[in-house]
Amino acid sequence: MKGFTQLSVSDWFYRNRYIAGFSNPARSLYQAVRELVENSLDACEIAGNLPYITVDLKLVSERKSPKVYRLTVSDNGTGIPPEHVPQAFCTVLFGNKFELKQHRGLFGLGAKMAVLYSQITTYKPIEVTTCYDGCIEHSFQLQMDLKNNKPIVLSVTSRKLRKPRTGTTVTLYLVGDYDRSLGSRSTGELIIEYLRLSAIANPHSTIVFSDPYGMIYKFERSVDKLPPLPKEADPHPHGVDAEMLKRMIEGSRNTSLQAFLSKNFDRVGPRKALEFLKWAGFDPSRDVKELSNEEIVKLTNAFKAYDKFLPPSSNILSPIGAEELKAAIVKLFTPEFVKTVTRPPKSYSGYPFQVEAGIAYGGPMIEKMCNREGNFKLLFRFANKIPLLFDERGDVCRKVVDGINWRQYRIDDATPIAIFIHVCSTRVPYKTAGKEMIADVEEIEEEIKLALMDCAREVRRYIYRKLKAEKEQERLNIFKAYITEIAENIVRVVNEDKQKLIELMWKVVTKRGRTK
Amino acid sequence: MKGFTQLSVSDWFYRNRYIAGFSNPARSLYQAVRELVENSLDACEIAGNLPYITVDLKLVSERKSPKVYRLTVSDNGTGIPPEHVPQAFCTVLFGNKFELKQHRGLFGLGAKMAVLYSQITTYKPIEVTTCYDGCIEHSFQLQMDLKNNKPIVLSVTSRKLRKPRTGTTVTLYLVGDYDRSLGSRSTGELIIEYLRLSAIANPHSTIVFSDPYGMIYKFERSVDKLPPLPKEADPHPHGVDAEMLKRMIEGSRNTSLQAFLSKNFDRVGPRKALEFLKWAGFDPSRDVKELSNEEIVKLTNAFKAYDKFLPPSSNILSPIGAEELKAAIVKLFTPEFVKTVTRPPKSYSGYPFQVEAGIAYGGPMIEKMCNREGNFKLLFRFANKIPLLFDERGDVCRKVVDGINWRQYRIDDATPIAIFIHVCSTRVPYKTAGKEMIADVEEIEEEIKLALMDCAREVRRYIYRKLKAEKEQERLNIFKAYITEIAENIVRVVNEDKQKLIELMWKVVTKRGRTK
Repeated sequence: MKGFTQLSVSDWFYRNRYIAGFSNPARSLYQAVRELVENSLDACEIAGNLPYITVDLKLVSERKSPKVYRLTVSDNGTGIPPEHVPQAFCTVLFGNKFELKQHRGLFGLGAKMAVLYSQITTYKPIEVTTCYDGCIEHSFQLQMDLKNNKPIVLSVTSRKLRKPRTGTTVTLYLVGDYDRSLGSRSTGELIIEYLRLSAIANPHSTIVFSDPYGMIYKFERSVDKLPPLPKEADPHPHGVDAEMLKRMIEGSRNTSLQAFLSKNFDRVGPRKALEFLKWAGFDPSRDVKELSNEEIVKLTNAFKAYDKFLPPSSNILSPIGAEELKAAIVKLFTPEFVKTVTRPPKSYSGYPFQVEAGIAYGGPMIEKMCNREGNFKLLFRFANKIPLLFDERGDVCRKVVDGINWRQYRIDDATPIAIFIHVCSTRVPYKTAGKEMIADVEEIEEEIKLALMDCAREVRRYIYRKLKAEKEQERLNIFKAYITEIAENIVRVVNEDKQKLIELMWKVVTKRGRTK
Repeated sequence: MKGFTQLSVSDWFYRNRYIAGFSNPARSLYQAVRELVENSLDACEIAGNLPYITVDLKLVSERKSPKVYRLTVSDNGTGIPPEHVPQAFCTVLFGNKFELKQHRGLFGLGAKMAVLYSQITTYKPIEVTTCYDGCIEHSFQLQMDLKNNKPIVLSVTSRKLRKPRTGTTVTLYLVGDYDRSLGSRSTGELIIEYLRLSAIANPHSTIVFSDPYGMIYKFERSVDKLPPLPKEADPHPHGVDAEMLKRMIEGSRNTSLQAFLSKNFDRVGPRKALEFLKWAGFDPSRDVKELSNEEIVKLTNAFKAYDKFLPPSSNILSPIGAEELKAAIVKLFTPEFVKTVTRPPKSYSGYPFQVEAGIAYGGPMIEKMCNREGNFKLLFRFANKIPLLFDERGDVCRKVVDGINWRQYRIDDATPIAIFIHVCSTRVPYKTAGKEMIADVEEIEEEIKLALMDCAREVRRYIYRKLKAEKEQERLNIFKAYITEIAENIVRVVNEDKQKLIELMWKVVTKRGRTK
């Protein structure tokens, strides 16, 4: 039997990097841009700054193959405390996004995977320049010790800033392929599409992209107001397992069960705690530290079985907003008609989530895109304000879209519509660490369906009115064509003024048409 | 800014367990069975024993909810050396399946995730009884220290066996739901389906399943011959990145570049090494230990760019075999017609892979299944002899099946066919750690397509012959109905013996029909 070995976590992710989206050079280039931009958006949001993010991508290899790029992403976010910089970029699963909160990042993985990929393809160190306190800027040159999951600091310099500011700039070198096609579009087109859609989901952000050919794409903010910052939540009893409960108890003081519950759980006050503990057969005054493993399991099971807890807090979520979403869609897609909705927050397994959707109908841009893709139900997916561009087939959004009977909304295979779906949650149930597919969670599926049906009804109404107006117009046109002739004949019979008669008839007809 | 923290890898997988297939109780129960059975199949294969695996699942909770099950999986495989048992089950990313070889397991994750899930839902220790040397059997009671990714050994006992044998038995307790529906089938149906399909992909295995209701399902081996054991491969130059090359150099002795290449790489001999090094501009006598990082990167890039390496060794793969696959399909599905093919081995990014496929047509069982699913192109997917039952929509196999113009093979939406696709490789490109979807790798896509087209052509021929035969039969039936009458009329004219004439005419007609 072959020797047993222990892999470091960085080693494991190195071997299985495609799980995090780093497969071929083209896809990896896309993923690297994405991870850095999402980190930047998060950092700006936390800082309370309107994001201004620049992405610079340049081809730096002299030979034709492989293509080596320099990628620089710069933001005006919080910056990173200098003592944490090496680990924040070079230690896998080191991070500050592990609490229960609506984040773009989720896995403590993204930026490190980009660094890892950079290292295994070019072996050039990454450069991080960051200012956290607004005064002193630190610059690092870093590499990863993959076998031990540790950073290697090659150099550090620091300087005092003349003008106070915070923010981070990351530069890394990686093998990529900007021009290679990934499915129906090239990597470059996908990167631009990603940034354009990010502007829809983050209307308060400005993103400037300078591509390898020197083209500048500027996606300017459409609103000047920061969205409310998502807040951290206490865990909801329905989302707690035995391991988590055990840790919460370990981290708490000696206290009664009742006090422990009402202090540490979302939507559980002293009265609800008492009511629940009685129902579950626990003594409310029992010292929480004295619970055995068996009792902890029993308590967790009781949490799940008790159906009288209030649903998890939803005011900690930060949706895009129906109006903001609509404004962004109108700005970027100029449709003939658009309807957006923000559904009320719901929850699954103790995690709050919220669905927003929009359907845009017609207009030259959507018609063109539909024709190009040969698909008359274009789908744009977002999760926690991140656009998802890959693996649509495996996503719950596509499943719902395909399951709707669109004909009943007067939408057939030739109706040019674009569908927008946004799911935000303290825990988006992704199928993979590459964050591209939302899993089939029943509750989420249902909400997406309801959101789309809301929008579709309005679209039906619009299409119906439009068709009716067209028909009416047609009817009037026919009448108009004959009206002179009819009038002449009547004149001959009743001996009236022809022009007056025409005007009178026209008035009657159009008025009737309008009020009908 | 929130505090930065380092997660242990077990902690990370604990938080993101749904990525490995452990989401809700129903799905987790299925996944736990799967992971343990796959480990058992691997252990038997390595031991060179015809697998005899028993799976026992019993409901042990007294309350209605949550449902706690005891799962026991037992095999006659290699057994596990006692010193490795605690880590093999309780340390994430500890394992013996990290080399380049066709394995069912791949991630060093599966069994540990089942243990982790067991722990967080029941907090009961797992029990492992194993014999590695054939004489002494050890029994462990184990728990996981999730925060530190370490095993906790609660007890060990050992005894001398009277009759020498090797093998492992694992028992764990977990919350599950055998009866809940997961998509169109219940968890129980999926587990049975999984075991049944495992019998197709492993015709040399016997699997006995005892379900929570006391029903026994026995899937007996259909062949008594072990398939050739997959072998370990040296890495192919096309599959090597800078990090990997650096490690290979660190692990080697001082030697010339030429010798290093010809010793450590698949399909590279001294002559090929020389030819390549000249082409890439390296001195073949250069000491490999002296290469700088830049040179290592340059060498890796040259590996990728050089197109004269032989394709990776394929004799290390272990396909099911077209005949074996056919036998298993006939035994389990009793179709009217079946065609199977094993394609020649190919490679992607330096990893060899091989595609096998089968199409089964008609027969009462397939017709019934097609009717039940409302789907007349049933798809059964396998990867390294593992059946894949989830997330079909996101799999490359489904993509290829949907992309084929079936009408040209006389297969329309109402033709009852079942499609079987098996992909084996030293590295199956899964999209997730749950091992349910094969990623869209161009080379694999192409091979699947060719394999299906091979099969579909035979199916077309069969259907054509069948339709023709039916038509011919119909023609004969009509003729037969009239033959007496015609004969009578001829008799009247030519005055011959009627019966003789009928026989003569029938002979002529049927002969013509047959030779035509």
